[in-house]
Amino acid sequence: MSRIYNFSAGPSALPEPVLRQAQEELMEWRDSGMSVMEMSHRGRFFSLIAEELENDLRTLLAIPDNYKVLFMQGGATAQFSFIPQNILNGRTRACYVNTGAWSEKAIQDAKNYCEVIVSASSEASKFTNIPDPSDWALDEQAAYLHYTANETIHGVEFSDIPDSGGLPLVSDMSSNILSRKFDLSRFGLVYAGTQKNMGPAGVTVVIVRDDLIGKAGKQTPPVFNYADQAKNHSMLNTPATYNWYLVGLVLKWLLKQGGVDAIEQRNMAKAELLYQTIDQSSLYRNPVDSSCRSRMNVPFILADQNLDKPFLAAAEANGLFELKGHRSVGGMRASIYNAMPEEGVRALCDFMAEFERTH
Amino acid sequence: MSRIYNFSAGPSALPEPVLRQAQEELMEWRDSGMSVMEMSHRGRFFSLIAEELENDLRTLLAIPDNYKVLFMQGGATAQFSFIPQNILNGRTRACYVNTGAWSEKAIQDAKNYCEVIVSASSEASKFTNIPDPSDWALDEQAAYLHYTANETIHGVEFSDIPDSGGLPLVSDMSSNILSRKFDLSRFGLVYAGTQKNMGPAGVTVVIVRDDLIGKAGKQTPPVFNYADQAKNHSMLNTPATYNWYLVGLVLKWLLKQGGVDAIEQRNMAKAELLYQTIDQSSLYRNPVDSSCRSRMNVPFILADQNLDKPFLAAAEANGLFELKGHRSVGGMRASIYNAMPEEGVRALCDFMAEFERTH
Repeated sequence: MSRIYNFSAGPSALPEPVLRQAQEELMEWRDSGMSVMEMSHRGRFFSLIAEELENDLRTLLAIPDNYKVLFMQGGATAQFSFIPQNILNGRTRACYVNTGAWSEKAIQDAKNYCEVIVSASSEASKFTNIPDPSDWALDEQAAYLHYTANETIHGVEFSDIPDSGGLPLVSDMSSNILSRKFDLSRFGLVYAGTQKNMGPAGVTVVIVRDDLIGKAGKQTPPVFNYADQAKNHSMLNTPATYNWYLVGLVLKWLLKQGGVDAIEQRNMAKAELLYQTIDQSSLYRNPVDSSCRSRMNVPFILADQNLDKPFLAAAEANGLFELKGHRSVGGMRASIYNAMPEEGVRALCDFMAEFERTH
Repeated sequence: MSRIYNFSAGPSALPEPVLRQAQEELMEWRDSGMSVMEMSHRGRFFSLIAEELENDLRTLLAIPDNYKVLFMQGGATAQFSFIPQNILNGRTRACYVNTGAWSEKAIQDAKNYCEVIVSASSEASKFTNIPDPSDWALDEQAAYLHYTANETIHGVEFSDIPDSGGLPLVSDMSSNILSRKFDLSRFGLVYAGTQKNMGPAGVTVVIVRDDLIGKAGKQTPPVFNYADQAKNHSMLNTPATYNWYLVGLVLKWLLKQGGVDAIEQRNMAKAELLYQTIDQSSLYRNPVDSSCRSRMNVPFILADQNLDKPFLAAAEANGLFELKGHRSVGGMRASIYNAMPEEGVRALCDFMAEFERTH
């Protein structure tokens, strides 16, 4: 077996110890006589797994008691529709900040349920900066203010939590949750697909302050009704049990690494290494304003587009995979989530320098 | 390792060869250098897996070309809401047949989107029979006719496809899909959660005739819009990739068993064995009309309720697990899906006879 370095934006590399444990336990979990995949979600074995999953996430993110933690299906994309369905709370408007492709999708879907006020947009800069929050046009009658904490495609990340002017703050943290510490109590709702920093695809975490829920309309499907699912510990119907288990393994791995504080230090070091390699070269370029460069997704373009294919081929020959940029922006992208070891980033930087030297 | 016989209603036992293959390939799929869990859903490796998944399902169910096959999230329960959202096609009424707990849930959720006409109900018999289809009250203005092919809780299964009087026929086959042959071309839509006969929980299969889709309202979330997902091969957003892979392994196992025809013969034999044991005893009783007894879920009650706990304890001591009936009906239930080997059913029958002898 030869594992490669996988820079995929998601689904993405998982910690090797997690995969090893999953492999060891695949046929039988502890002394249960069965695989986790085969367990009734209401049985005594899986109940333990579910309980530890929520407890570990609460520990890692220091989630206050007045927040519900939901484990849903459908991806963060489904939440673009279910957030307005659940937390408009009788209001007719919501504020959104547009900092890239994922913000745009969230805005587009929310429009089917309410009037969307785009409080700020960096479209004019081709999403290479974040508009100064002191200039955002907030509507105090809005139900909430939504922003995308990290734009996976454009490689733009908020380094601070913006001031929401009293509105409940809602954030899509799909691609940077658990990668850096943040004060959850400043949010009304935080959500994230698991397939970047938390595990395989198939689970969506929604963390929501309990005063915001309970007023969804009748047309909100029960399995996507936050209050209904909170009452049922996300088991209103059969959840994606094996995915919960795998996310649980990733959380335990993260706790062992020292938690979010410790992984943040490593993520900073990895990102610095890669941005330095880019900035010091004359072949590679990252267009994002240095104040909001993502620590998770590092897009870069080559000075000569004709080198794109040779670059990707040579990278694969060196065990560096999934470096092709998103089709909407082109170029390259290295996603370096929690599970990407520093050696992987170092191998990429060495390769990039060598490729520049020889081309 | 000692694997037990797991009679859980779902998630449920998986074929042992499937689990073994998943275990072997967990760290690295073929020569990809990565786990299936880590693969980009748009990458070349996963594209192969996705393509084979759909092809194998089309082969096993002989799905005609004018049907779309969708792999979604949220469980069959989510579809209770998304079926009317997608295929009312401008009509305001839909017909539902009520044959048990799952029909009731489907009816309840559909009411949030349209007027529900309950065309027939076996509630009066406590869901122990199926009303004669020639007596069903069908409304020719209805958008479709919905029925639950197998009631997991009540152990009631349709042995034939009912005449829908020209209405598009919609069926929840969560607990008996791939367990018996049926003519798909008689349906407008068939749907099923995977966690009984197809794999672990986390995927919902929707097979829909293409003339029925394309008129969902704007309030249907894009990831649950059948036409949108059909256009995107169920990859409008990141699907539950590892679950797709596991379902694919189960389908390949089933093909190796000889497909649906072959497994149906084995399922008939298993069910006959268990019902015989019940009918020949004076301790056990199954209340369902013999014409519609389920081959998949066999509920039974003990003549003396005080024996329930000793029965379950003794069963577990004999390696027979998850036999407790659903909380809403009590008693026992043995779920004997495709993956339950005949030896498992035989072991259960032997145990039941021995328990009766000694109590």
